[in-house]
Amino acid sequence: MSSNTLGKIFSFTTWGESHGKAIGCVVDGVPSKISLNEEDIQTHLNKRRPGQSKYTTQRQEKDEVEILSGVFEGLTTGHPISLIIKNQDHRSKDYSDIKDVFRPGHADYTYWLKYGIRDYRGGGRSSARETAMRVAAGAIARKIISKKIKKNYKITGALVQIGKSKIDYNNWKENFIEKNDFFCPDEKIIKEWENLITNARKEGSSLGAIVELRCSGLPAGLGEPIYDKLDADLAKAIMSINAVKGVEIGNGFESVNETGITNVDEMRIQNSKPIFLSNNNGGILGGISTGQDLVVRFCVKPTSSISSVKKTINIENKETEIITKGRHDPCVGIRAVPVGEAMMATTLADHCMRYL
Amino acid sequence: MSSNTLGKIFSFTTWGESHGKAIGCVVDGVPSKISLNEEDIQTHLNKRRPGQSKYTTQRQEKDEVEILSGVFEGLTTGHPISLIIKNQDHRSKDYSDIKDVFRPGHADYTYWLKYGIRDYRGGGRSSARETAMRVAAGAIARKIISKKIKKNYKITGALVQIGKSKIDYNNWKENFIEKNDFFCPDEKIIKEWENLITNARKEGSSLGAIVELRCSGLPAGLGEPIYDKLDADLAKAIMSINAVKGVEIGNGFESVNETGITNVDEMRIQNSKPIFLSNNNGGILGGISTGQDLVVRFCVKPTSSISSVKKTINIENKETEIITKGRHDPCVGIRAVPVGEAMMATTLADHCMRYL
Amino acid sequence: MSSNTLGKIFSFTTWGESHGKAIGCVVDGVPSKISLNEEDIQTHLNKRRPGQSKYTTQRQEKDEVEILSGVFEGLTTGHPISLIIKNQDHRSKDYSDIKDVFRPGHADYTYWLKYGIRDYRGGGRSSARETAMRVAAGAIARKIISKKIKKNYKITGALVQIGKSKIDYNNWKENFIEKNDFFCPDEKIIKEWENLITNARKEGSSLGAIVELRCSGLPAGLGEPIYDKLDADLAKAIMSINAVKGVEIGNGFESVNETGITNVDEMRIQNSKPIFLSNNNGGILGGISTGQDLVVRFCVKPTSSISSVKKTINIENKETEIITKGRHDPCVGIRAVPVGEAMMATTLADHCMRYL
Amino acid sequence: MSSNTLGKIFSFTTWGESHGKAIGCVVDGVPSKISLNEEDIQTHLNKRRPGQSKYTTQRQEKDEVEILSGVFEGLTTGHPISLIIKNQDHRSKDYSDIKDVFRPGHADYTYWLKYGIRDYRGGGRSSARETAMRVAAGAIARKIISKKIKKNYKITGALVQIGKSKIDYNNWKENFIEKNDFFCPDEKIIKEWENLITNARKEGSSLGAIVELRCSGLPAGLGEPIYDKLDADLAKAIMSINAVKGVEIGNGFESVNETGITNVDEMRIQNSKPIFLSNNNGGILGGISTGQDLVVRFCVKPTSSISSVKKTINIENKETEIITKGRHDPCVGIRAVPVGEAMMATTLADHCMRYL
Repeated sequence: MSSNTLGKIFSFTTWGESHGKAIGCVVDGVPSKISLNEEDIQTHLNKRRPGQSKYTTQRQEKDEVEILSGVFEGLTTGHPISLIIKNQDHRSKDYSDIKDVFRPGHADYTYWLKYGIRDYRGGGRSSARETAMRVAAGAIARKIISKKIKKNYKITGALVQIGKSKIDYNNWKENFIEKNDFFCPDEKIIKEWENLITNARKEGSSLGAIVELRCSGLPAGLGEPIYDKLDADLAKAIMSINAVKGVEIGNGFESVNETGITNVDEMRIQNSKPIFLSNNNGGILGGISTGQDLVVRFCVKPTSSISSVKKTINIENKETEIITKGRHDPCVGIRAVPVGEAMMATTLADHCMRYL
Repeated sequence: MSSNTLGKIFSFTTWGESHGKAIGCVVDGVPSKISLNEEDIQTHLNKRRPGQSKYTTQRQEKDEVEILSGVFEGLTTGHPISLIIKNQDHRSKDYSDIKDVFRPGHADYTYWLKYGIRDYRGGGRSSARETAMRVAAGAIARKIISKKIKKNYKITGALVQIGKSKIDYNNWKENFIEKNDFFCPDEKIIKEWENLITNARKEGSSLGAIVELRCSGLPAGLGEPIYDKLDADLAKAIMSINAVKGVEIGNGFESVNETGITNVDEMRIQNSKPIFLSNNNGGILGGISTGQDLVVRFCVKPTSSISSVKKTINIENKETEIITKGRHDPCVGIRAVPVGEAMMATTLADHCMRYL
Repeated sequence: MSSNTLGKIFSFTTWGESHGKAIGCVVDGVPSKISLNEEDIQTHLNKRRPGQSKYTTQRQEKDEVEILSGVFEGLTTGHPISLIIKNQDHRSKDYSDIKDVFRPGHADYTYWLKYGIRDYRGGGRSSARETAMRVAAGAIARKIISKKIKKNYKITGALVQIGKSKIDYNNWKENFIEKNDFFCPDEKIIKEWENLITNARKEGSSLGAIVELRCSGLPAGLGEPIYDKLDADLAKAIMSINAVKGVEIGNGFESVNETGITNVDEMRIQNSKPIFLSNNNGGILGGISTGQDLVVRFCVKPTSSISSVKKTINIENKETEIITKGRHDPCVGIRAVPVGEAMMATTLADHCMRYL
Repeated sequence: MSSNTLGKIFSFTTWGESHGKAIGCVVDGVPSKISLNEEDIQTHLNKRRPGQSKYTTQRQEKDEVEILSGVFEGLTTGHPISLIIKNQDHRSKDYSDIKDVFRPGHADYTYWLKYGIRDYRGGGRSSARETAMRVAAGAIARKIISKKIKKNYKITGALVQIGKSKIDYNNWKENFIEKNDFFCPDEKIIKEWENLITNARKEGSSLGAIVELRCSGLPAGLGEPIYDKLDADLAKAIMSINAVKGVEIGNGFESVNETGITNVDEMRIQNSKPIFLSNNNGGILGGISTGQDLVVRFCVKPTSSISSVKKTINIENKETEIITKGRHDPCVGIRAVPVGEAMMATTLADHCMRYL
């Protein structure tokens, strides 16, 4: 029941600290004879990698993944796959100013109370650096889904809101998402977002965001009642991402503004197959996939690491102040997109292994 | 890894169908020597029980719980506690009209695809009747939290929105919550809600709702990084409740409208103890409780069982229509309040057992 | 991670005390559409039921099982199956003489230290009465194995030694096993065993026994490296039976008297299929079934409840003596045969669900 | 539910193949603030390391362990501890003669059937090389037990039988165990064992062995009824070691030769504390530790890798023969001693975390 493990049949366990020697994970429950190499994983890691645009952190990490076990002559063996990324950016900085101080909005205070010790270098275990291994596990998860459902499917993550600025869904262009620094599907809003980020940085502040995840091509039947419902497991996986404070499925909170008459997804037969006349439920009924597109949204709070002065205390219960210096994301929601996709992929892979 | 079980150390497994002989659960991981009797559980069951006001279903169920094991001479023994409620309302109705038809918005279609068989009597296993056992397990969970944290704490669930009608938080009166049929903390909105429900019923429709859960008096340190974070586990537990489509912590989705400067909870020392100057994070940082009030909200979609005609199909893939007759909740959000409280209690009890 | 649960995909959770209202279990991970009724389970319970011969306890329990959930119109639904047996023999006896005294060889002392409370009526939760629910779960497990392996298989349990008296394997007659009170395959030893039991009882003593379990017809491939090896899981399941003190696979401890040359199972091809020239490994290599017969043996210690005077202490740490009165098995190994079979069946069903 | 993971609260997950890049494990559930460095682990690895005496394999592996995470400034942080040992001995040998052939007595055949692929270099994942990581995890486990029970305790593993040659328990000298190549407590039998091993090697054969494990200094109360009994968990952990075919507790199979009168451990009070007059039950009653010495024995079959010609088949179902060349242990039971100790340590650490 390790709390560093996610998944029941397809599962992965991550380890490592932000500025330790390395980070890594052990991925288990992978069927044998799936082709897998480092490049398959690296592609996804590169989407999350820091230092790629001026709108994310300038920390430099190549995040080069190495497969240490579980793959033989290019194929998975059915045995645990051990992945490792060596940390490059762990030069011996001077941490003396933040060593004993709790950064507000971070886990510093709660880790200190819980463990009585903390690795103060960049947040240690609580750092979002851990999410690199989620993305790595997600890359393997995607291969499992393919093998299990035996047809094409697609997971798409997109940023749909930064601060108060929402995209216009009418402008949604799938293939634009990978072509901009924000994973944004709406070309017309880019300029506005660039300004928002630039201004937030100037003001020593940061912005929140909303990410939308979709998956098309899934079969019906994924998800296990009563407690391992597909939506329940997605909610857990996504809420466990650093800085996420809310998750919703389909219409989500908006469904409260609907009525039973308008919100129910009616059914018809088309070409001898069942279809739904709407997808207000986001592809899940009773915790089980319907075969429609999965639709999930989650919000990411404004980055807590900002260059404005904030009141805080230190480990001796003395009042003090803190300014977070250095290279931080003004909107962690951007890099949360590939992480969200990965959590959807790992959750789906686990349910594919449980059902198919 | 039974999907009918929730919790790792404190855990419970529910069983039973809506119109079967009985429903029940097995609660495990309960420390010995806690006083426990049927009345302790019945009190909470009575809050959820159907047929208590004209704003909820008129189905009559006494929901009388019986303890079959794990308690000896009034004290828990440390061994599994088996609870049972016999179903009263399982008179042999005529189900022929809905037997082969999928009720839209329900799990009928997905269960049929997944299992190839379904107990069509009132939804069978997918019925919200299962939530009675969540409430029963929650009653035991509350006792464990007390024993573990050794001081007073309080879980409060309240309905804060029905349809588009939100309460005014300035009118929040804690002790009013138990005094009305809606678990509503705002006396001034009651009349409006009564009309809303009455109209929805007349129109053959139903309404969604938002429930807010709070817990005061908790210690810091509950929750386990990285995947069993307190907020992640709460999200899963709550999202697994029937008809829930969204969960948020603290400011939740609203935090996207804030900035890093306004959203961070700053810290000071007061009477030699750390305090926070705000609670935008809802009492959780890095997945671990801070000692502040826990704040969680979730939305419940409009009840799918409505008396308006809806298009659907049957098990032979033929198009048909359905009207749900009988005694249904026009707003399941109301009875979701004690269920939400129970999920908060069971999640907290599990984390108390893991940490304290 | 309830310690009252066994199995990962096919799993069961037992509850109840020897002299409580009832005992029961919740069986989960059962595929849908398997035919199941009470009689399927009762048949196996009757083999274990007390009071059937003069060589076992004379306690009277009809052990009538009732299915409360998970079966609809004669078929499993894929949802948890709740089973219950009401305790008949819980007349209000006078326990005052043993209430505060630890019966040596039993769990009385350790339960008292661990829980600070114990249900002293017949051992409470630690009573071998719990094994009735293992047998019930085993009956369902057998159906799953059939469904999964799609061919005939056979689990056979037999008593091969009582005290120092071993059967002659040359006399093994499979169909004699069910025809005697000892589940003994060797007709010629019956007279001797009758005398042994009778004498043990007269002397206020009891006898140990060795049970052999075999399963033929299994496919290769069952068992998961590294820690959930088939033999490891069998060892755990069987060692968890009351009074069992040893488990061995194939040649077991006897293999120490062999050499690498004699103990290795060589392979040949026969009718185009791989065969083994011997089965010293008991049908398991590297923790995975080979397709040969599974062979497992376990020993059951002499019953601790005897009518001779034994030195013990009470809950106030005072020295005292105890005589166990009443209706006890002079050799619990006899009734351990169906329990051992059940543990083999549940372990195999779980591994069938994991692999097939 | 990864099958490469053992333990519920204290748990470890191993990964890696015999001749892959590295082997490793992730140890989780370790309390914070325990001092830990590589040397603490290396000490135990060195006991198991090959190439140390002429009675074990001559394969050269330094087995140098590195800690990659979970330790900060010499103390555990409460987060997962990642350990790695780089494989030195993975020179590109010519495996063409065994590549397609199943080594009898090994997992080659079953892995091939189950996975359709196998890493044929030295057994791949099924190699006993994996047990190095068990020993590493065991070293951390030992530190946890100390922290939890807050007093001295001692785990002692000893070889008590090789082939048919048993030690004389009257000659047991605890401090002699570490002073000979066999972990043997009986100085007088050493000469005989040296000859046995030398002869077995000469004859192209191998020998089985029996290992006895003891633990003194444990508190009462460890172990969880009904299925996670201390003896059940020990049985699983030990049976999962390569080549182990039997496990017994206390008197074990020998108890069948006793009677209820002689086998029951009577109790008295000595210096105001409960004592037992014997320890036939090996320190466990009802699955829970009594506070007496734990006593466990297990047998290891004769090594299957021998230099005699054995009949076998290949992956194309053709008959062939095999001779295992190279550097193999003539009696794997010797190096199984530290592995057995490790399995006892990890099982105890897990139960300490569950109970204390």
